[in-house]
Amino acid sequence: MASGSILVAQGGGPTAVINQSLVGVVLAARQAGASRIYGALHGVRGIVDENLVDLGQVSAADLELVAATPSSALGSTRDKPDVAYCQKIFAVLRAHAIEQFLYIGGNDSSDTVRIVSLEAQKANYPLRCIHIPKTIDNDLVGSDHTPGFPSAARFVAQAFAGANLDNASLPGVYVGVVMGRHAGFLTAAAAAGRNAADDGPHLIYLPERTFEMARFLADVKAVYDRLGRCVIAVSEGIHDADGNAIASLLAKSVERDAHGNVQLSGTGALADLLCDAIKEQLGIKRVRGDTFGYLQRSFLGCVSPVDQREAREVGKRAVQFALEGDCDGSVAIRRSGDSASGYAVDYVLLPLADVAGKTRVMEDAFIDADGTGVTDAFISYLRPLLGADMPVSHRLRAAPVAKILTVD
Amino acid sequence: MASGSILVAQGGGPTAVINQSLVGVVLAARQAGASRIYGALHGVRGIVDENLVDLGQVSAADLELVAATPSSALGSTRDKPDVAYCQKIFAVLRAHAIEQFLYIGGNDSSDTVRIVSLEAQKANYPLRCIHIPKTIDNDLVGSDHTPGFPSAARFVAQAFAGANLDNASLPGVYVGVVMGRHAGFLTAAAAAGRNAADDGPHLIYLPERTFEMARFLADVKAVYDRLGRCVIAVSEGIHDADGNAIASLLAKSVERDAHGNVQLSGTGALADLLCDAIKEQLGIKRVRGDTFGYLQRSFLGCVSPVDQREAREVGKRAVQFALEGDCDGSVAIRRSGDSASGYAVDYVLLPLADVAGKTRVMEDAFIDADGTGVTDAFISYLRPLLGADMPVSHRLRAAPVAKILTVD
Repeated sequence: MASGSILVAQGGGPTAVINQSLVGVVLAARQAGASRIYGALHGVRGIVDENLVDLGQVSAADLELVAATPSSALGSTRDKPDVAYCQKIFAVLRAHAIEQFLYIGGNDSSDTVRIVSLEAQKANYPLRCIHIPKTIDNDLVGSDHTPGFPSAARFVAQAFAGANLDNASLPGVYVGVVMGRHAGFLTAAAAAGRNAADDGPHLIYLPERTFEMARFLADVKAVYDRLGRCVIAVSEGIHDADGNAIASLLAKSVERDAHGNVQLSGTGALADLLCDAIKEQLGIKRVRGDTFGYLQRSFLGCVSPVDQREAREVGKRAVQFALEGDCDGSVAIRRSGDSASGYAVDYVLLPLADVAGKTRVMEDAFIDADGTGVTDAFISYLRPLLGADMPVSHRLRAAPVAKILTVD
Repeated sequence: MASGSILVAQGGGPTAVINQSLVGVVLAARQAGASRIYGALHGVRGIVDENLVDLGQVSAADLELVAATPSSALGSTRDKPDVAYCQKIFAVLRAHAIEQFLYIGGNDSSDTVRIVSLEAQKANYPLRCIHIPKTIDNDLVGSDHTPGFPSAARFVAQAFAGANLDNASLPGVYVGVVMGRHAGFLTAAAAAGRNAADDGPHLIYLPERTFEMARFLADVKAVYDRLGRCVIAVSEGIHDADGNAIASLLAKSVERDAHGNVQLSGTGALADLLCDAIKEQLGIKRVRGDTFGYLQRSFLGCVSPVDQREAREVGKRAVQFALEGDCDGSVAIRRSGDSASGYAVDYVLLPLADVAGKTRVMEDAFIDADGTGVTDAFISYLRPLLGADMPVSHRLRAAPVAKILTVD
C-alpha cells in the first residue's frame, strides 16, 4: 500500500513520552509495509544537513526500551524554516524518495509543518505532511489535551504533594515555579496533588491572569495568617498588565529562539524575586523557592500510563493519515467519553492552518473567580489523564493527648 | 515487658521514608506491649509545648498509608535544646510517665538526643534515649548509609538521567545543583543515572574539594569542546579555599538556624551564578541551570524499596534497643554483605557521643583523581541502595543513512 519512504523527526522541547510517538510511527509504518523509515537527527536541521538514520532496522525490543525513555531520542531543534530552508529540505527528501514527512512537536513545530506543506505545494513536490502533537504546555488549539502534558502534570502534582507535606512539617512559605509561557495548564496541575482540605498549593498564579505584586503579597499574607504556612504555584509566564513577563524584567539580557520566544526557563530568578518580596514586605522568615526547570519535562520514571498509550497512538494514527488519507494535517486528541460513560478519546486530523502558530490558554471555566485557584471542572478534566496509579499522600490523624501541665 | 510510655518525634529535614521509621516504632512498640505510644508534634518543640498525640489508637491500615507518604508526619523542628529547654522536656515527660524517648533525625537531631540524654542523667531522670537515623545527606559517622539517602539519591539519579537526555536532545550546558552542605554523597549520586558511555553528568563538584572558578570553566570548556554539550552536577555546599560557601557569597543576607547552619537551599542563585559565568566567560549560548531544591527530599512517588525496608527496620530496632537494652545510643546500619555474597545489612547501637555533632564526608576512595567525578567503588557502594526497580534510560542506536547530496 505504502509508496515512497517515510521520514519522522522531533522538534521543540522534549517530553516524557515523545519517544512513544516515534515508536508508534515506526511500528505502524512497518505494519503498513512502508519501503523505508528514516529518522532525521535534531528535527528539520537533520534533514537539511542530511543526517538521517535508518529506523527500519531497529529491533522491536530496542524500540520498546527507547519508547520508555524520556526526551527526544532523535534529538531536537528550535530552527524555524523559511523558504530557502524548505528548498534544502525538499532537495534532501527528493534525493531519498521520501513522500511522507511526520513531525512530532508543539506549536512551533506545527508551524514548521505548515510552512513545509505550503512550500511543497508551491514547488509541486508530492509530500504528505503530518504534525504529531507533543507539548507539556497543553496549548495546542483543537486538542482536548496534548501528549506529554499528562506526564508533566503528574510530575508537578507529585512534586507539590511532597512540597506541601515538607511545608507542613517545617512551616513557612514555599514558592514553586512551573513551566508555561502563555498557558497555565501545567502550573494548575499542582492542584491535583492535594488530598487533605488544608493541603497546598493554597495559591496558584497563571499567565491567563495579570500578576500584581501588591495583590500577590496580600494573598500570601491572608493564607499565612490563617494557616501559619502557604504553598504557592507560579507559572514562569506570569506577566504585568502590559504583558511583560515578570521573569524577563529581571534578566540581564533577553534570550530569544528562532520562533521569537523569550527564554524563561533555566534560571531561578523568578522564584528568588518572589521569595525576597515575601521576606522583605511580609517579614516572614522561612521562605523557600524552587524552580522545577527541566525536571518536569524529562525526569526518568515519572510518567502517566494514559499519556504513554495516547502518545503511542498519535504516532500510529499519523501513519494511517499519511498513507490512507488525502490531505496534510495535525493529529488531535478529542475526548469522547463523559463522567457517566468514563474517559475515552478519539483521534482526528485537523487542518494545519487551524493549529499552527495558535496558542490555547486555559478556559475561564477552569480558573476560579479570584484568579488564584482552579475549579472542580479543571480537576475533573485533569484527573483521568494522570493515570489510576497516581500516588496519593496521607496525613497522620491521631487524637491529641490531654495536656497535664500548663506549659507556656 | 515494657514499662512506662514511649514517645517518638521527628527532627530536621524531611525525607521520603522518615514515616517508615515512625511506623516501625509504633508497630514494634505495640508488639512489645508498650503501655502507651505518644508522638510529639514538631520534634522537641512539641514536647516543650506539650503537643502530644496518641499513636496507640491509629489503625494499622492508616499507619501503612502514612508510612508510604514522604515528609515528617508528626511535623519537624530545627530547635536545639539547651539545659533550660531540657528541663521543660523532663517536666512534660515526667507528667506523662514517659521513659523512652526516640528521636528520628540527622546530625543535629542526634546532638539533641545526646544533650537530652546527658541532662536526664544529670537530673537523675530515668529516661532511655535512642536516636533513629535519617538524613538525605548520608553524613552520619559510623553508618554505612542513612535512611532517606537512598531515595533522595534515586531522585537525583533519575533527574540527571532525564536532564542528560534533554541536554543531548537540545545540546548546550546544563547545571544541576543538589543538596549537601558538607558531604557530597547526594550530588555524587547523579552519576548513577548514567547508562551510555557519553551520558552525563560529565563533571561533578563536591564540597569535599575546593571549588575554583577558573578551573571549573576550563573543565566545562574541555567537555563542551569534546562532546558539544556538558552536564554538570554541583553540590550546594561547594566552597572556596577559605571554606566560604560559594552560595553564601551571593546571598543578600545570611540566614542561620539554631544549629548555626547557613541556609543554602531554597534559592536558585548558585546555579544562576555558574550559568552566567559559563555564558559570559566561555561564550556558550544555551546554558541552563536547575536547583533541585525541596523536590529531592520530599517528592511523592520516588522511593527506593531498599530504603523503605531499612527505614522501617531502624524504627523497629530502636524500640528493641530501648526496651531490651541498657544504654542510650544511635541506631546505625552496617553493611555485612559483599559483592560475592550480595547486599546485606546489620543494625547496631552506637554511643551517642560517637555520632552526635560529627559529620561524615565522602571517602577519598569514592572521588576520582581530578576531583570532578566518582570512582567505580562509589557506584558499587551506591547501586544496591537504589533498588532493583530503578528505571534505566536507553538511547536510540540506529544506523546512519548514506548521504546522497553534499549538503553544506
